[in-house]
Amino acid sequence: MSERIVVVGFGPVAARLVDELLPAVRTGLVQLLVIGQESDAAYNRVMVAELAVGRTTAEALAMADASELESDGVEVRLGVKVKRIDRARQNVALSDGSTEHYDRLVFATGSRPVIPNLTGLNPDPSGPVLPAGVTALRDLKDAAVVRAAVADGKRVVVLGGGVLGLETALAAAEEGAQATVVHNGPFPLGRSIDRGSGSVLTSSLRAGGVRIAGNARSTGVETAGPGGSFSALLLDDGSAIDGDLLVLSCGVRPRIELAEGCGLPVGSGILVDHHLRAYHEPHMFAIGDCAEVRCPDAACVECRTAGGPSGLVGPGWRQAEWLAEYLVVLARDGQAAAEALEALPMEKPGVVVLKARGINLAVAGDNQADPWDEELLEAGAASGRARRQISQWADPEHGRYVKMTTRGGVLEGLVAVGMPRTAAELVVLFERSSELPADRSLLLRLDGPDQLDAGAATSNDPQRTVCRCAGVSAASIETSVVEGCSTVGEVSKATRAGTGCGGCHEDIKGIIEKHFQAAAA
Amino acid sequence: MSERIVVVGFGPVAARLVDELLPAVRTGLVQLLVIGQESDAAYNRVMVAELAVGRTTAEALAMADASELESDGVEVRLGVKVKRIDRARQNVALSDGSTEHYDRLVFATGSRPVIPNLTGLNPDPSGPVLPAGVTALRDLKDAAVVRAAVADGKRVVVLGGGVLGLETALAAAEEGAQATVVHNGPFPLGRSIDRGSGSVLTSSLRAGGVRIAGNARSTGVETAGPGGSFSALLLDDGSAIDGDLLVLSCGVRPRIELAEGCGLPVGSGILVDHHLRAYHEPHMFAIGDCAEVRCPDAACVECRTAGGPSGLVGPGWRQAEWLAEYLVVLARDGQAAAEALEALPMEKPGVVVLKARGINLAVAGDNQADPWDEELLEAGAASGRARRQISQWADPEHGRYVKMTTRGGVLEGLVAVGMPRTAAELVVLFERSSELPADRSLLLRLDGPDQLDAGAATSNDPQRTVCRCAGVSAASIETSVVEGCSTVGEVSKATRAGTGCGGCHEDIKGIIEKHFQAAAA
Repeated sequence: MSERIVVVGFGPVAARLVDELLPAVRTGLVQLLVIGQESDAAYNRVMVAELAVGRTTAEALAMADASELESDGVEVRLGVKVKRIDRARQNVALSDGSTEHYDRLVFATGSRPVIPNLTGLNPDPSGPVLPAGVTALRDLKDAAVVRAAVADGKRVVVLGGGVLGLETALAAAEEGAQATVVHNGPFPLGRSIDRGSGSVLTSSLRAGGVRIAGNARSTGVETAGPGGSFSALLLDDGSAIDGDLLVLSCGVRPRIELAEGCGLPVGSGILVDHHLRAYHEPHMFAIGDCAEVRCPDAACVECRTAGGPSGLVGPGWRQAEWLAEYLVVLARDGQAAAEALEALPMEKPGVVVLKARGINLAVAGDNQADPWDEELLEAGAASGRARRQISQWADPEHGRYVKMTTRGGVLEGLVAVGMPRTAAELVVLFERSSELPADRSLLLRLDGPDQLDAGAATSNDPQRTVCRCAGVSAASIETSVVEGCSTVGEVSKATRAGTGCGGCHEDIKGIIEKHFQAAAA
Repeated sequence: MSERIVVVGFGPVAARLVDELLPAVRTGLVQLLVIGQESDAAYNRVMVAELAVGRTTAEALAMADASELESDGVEVRLGVKVKRIDRARQNVALSDGSTEHYDRLVFATGSRPVIPNLTGLNPDPSGPVLPAGVTALRDLKDAAVVRAAVADGKRVVVLGGGVLGLETALAAAEEGAQATVVHNGPFPLGRSIDRGSGSVLTSSLRAGGVRIAGNARSTGVETAGPGGSFSALLLDDGSAIDGDLLVLSCGVRPRIELAEGCGLPVGSGILVDHHLRAYHEPHMFAIGDCAEVRCPDAACVECRTAGGPSGLVGPGWRQAEWLAEYLVVLARDGQAAAEALEALPMEKPGVVVLKARGINLAVAGDNQADPWDEELLEAGAASGRARRQISQWADPEHGRYVKMTTRGGVLEGLVAVGMPRTAAELVVLFERSSELPADRSLLLRLDGPDQLDAGAATSNDPQRTVCRCAGVSAASIETSVVEGCSTVGEVSKATRAGTGCGGCHEDIKGIIEKHFQAAAA
């Protein structure tokens, strides 16, 4: 019995789901309809900032080919919106006037940029109309606007000190624009980093040519540019930051109106259980940025401490992969067999990596405690559980900072600036919950001046995860290279490594080069 | 023409002066009279705390032998006080009723312990009468009192968190007494260390079996013990710290009454110029703990920033050595020749080392700034002078902490806890004003788990100072070992290394062992 699956949204996570379902589509086990609001099929939104400064092409970002999918039997509707969902009849009404039936519906609607409440901007979340010279840098059109400004060496003001904002500003500065980051609080990246790393990061950003305006509260945009375009960002202290282009980088919010409109329970995202299923609605699922995994069972310890959607592509891909299997089993073997599948494990707190020429930052977990904060460190240390411990290396003169927060020798938090190899090793230790060496200072050696000899400690473990977005190990990449891949693009095609945030491209290059050097020797 | 030199005081610094003058005494160039208030000749007061816990003997501390000196022609008067000095007639009136003429008089009166102003103690500085069970641990008699208490496993309360107090408490705890340190402020050692090292030090002291009562203001002593002896130290919060013995370790004050009484200018010590000569008084000098080198020339930049007496034995010995040469030249060649001698260089800020089993702490210079204290770090950075920079390693879980304060790559301050090899290397770099490696984390490797292989970086430089008190290099010690010395005592006799604070005894042992291992190999 063939099930008809409708996927609402066609971003990277939806593309992965479609990809995983293809075999079942080919055998006729499922029928698949994908509805995309943009006129383009799925592309790697995570790298739009790279595109915006001219470092990659729209073709390279493409993650799906609509006509290929069609020839495989997938229905693809682009430039079409879902207007309403009729849960009783199990069909969706589309903006082109058609109505489509579903057996299962998957929300993969992703998120939209937050438009800050500034005088001169229309904050209507469902359809903001931004003045000329203001962009949220979310889609390919936004990227084209930024690209033109950077190419002309214009003054680019980035509002927001998140990873995407910083990367955009750094790249823009490097490519010749005059870039300024305006952010709240004493340093960028807000609460995910601590004062030490914030201070070193700020210095590094300045050294990278980016102007930083911290502790700034913006109140409005001035549109006195040519044709009423953006001319300055106004701050609450009466000052103004002049510019030609304002890039809003104030975070994202899950797109949940459609789910909310048909009566599904929502939190910050569409609430789903450990089977990614909407509460009390066996026909509806949600994955990616729009989904909030938090089961209705009040006794579930995992869900009590779960955060909202991570905003990272890796967890979305793991959900897509898991849900594809679930849907296939469901179509083939029925509800009971699908229920028997092991639930998707909860995501560990994500690792955030800032990648830019000359700047390296990795952060994960909780980094707020300082080595002498007895109260913070004792918190949660009861009935035999170890207290937290901090090790910290600070060398701001050389742009270096590491803090390791451990409990029982295992990392609960890490932040590393200016120490790429130490950061890479700490991330591996964090993801595996491995015990750190008793002498934590050993980890600093990885970035010592003799690193080329000592580097073995980071780069020789074949089981380490190189691409964290797609979850690809060094061994898998090496295998693909042995089997003939000789460029990052080829490795990405063969293994999916490097198709997410792009932070591992240098690592993949390293593995390729090592292979060919060894072959030549 | 023979000059008669009278030395007032017979501590370690006076002993060194006498030692250096012996050749001139033997040839009859000078006549020498030494007046000691105690019944014992000079002994190493710095190690009285070691004696107090039974780790050394009074014989081992002896620094002079009165009868040997007498046979060399030196007059020695022990158990005698100088009552008055008559500058017009150039003679001193002694407590035994005699009067002695001098051509030159040298004050080497040292310092006396500060007796805190507590209810139940007599704070008269010139002759405190302490109740039974209260001692200042300054002389051999005090050491005997402490030794009896420690041998009986009594409760010893140490008032004061200075180096001497901490070492006494640690040693007492190790030898079986119950030791408690009571100190002001949040951590021991007060303003010479920073919060990080203070926190790590406190933990290490506790791990060493010492109880620590910080932020404590003591108000009085309770004497409800047997025969009206000490029973408790009373604090201003109404609490009491019970004990059998109270060791006062509240610092020292220079003994200057005699100099003041005969009209010499004094500051915190007897004021002397760069020739160690009292102001406008060519017949009088001062060395050691009682001397404050600060010349009367208001334009002298060195003296503007000079501190008071250091309280360390090393600077006193260097003064004694210099003054001996001056006095000999004066006696032999007259005033003009003596004036032509190069003045004694000003002392660098001292390095303080805390030596105890299981605890290692070294501190020098200014350590107050933290890596993010922009104001403190910018201070003094003007007209091309570099700003200060901080590198910091904190690993309190493992009792390790290092802070390096540099300007232009050269140390202005250092503090290291729990990292003996790193500390030793930093002290060498500090004393030589050498530039640190750009990657400061290299210094941490010296205490890495592979230190036995990598240790070469600290222990192979033959020119490094091993004994900082007496200023003896590793090369000199090695030479003495090659020439036959095989114990620390023999090396001390031959080179003076190890005759001061004793902190280098382990290093000297290491050099001896290395020599014999190499010889055996």
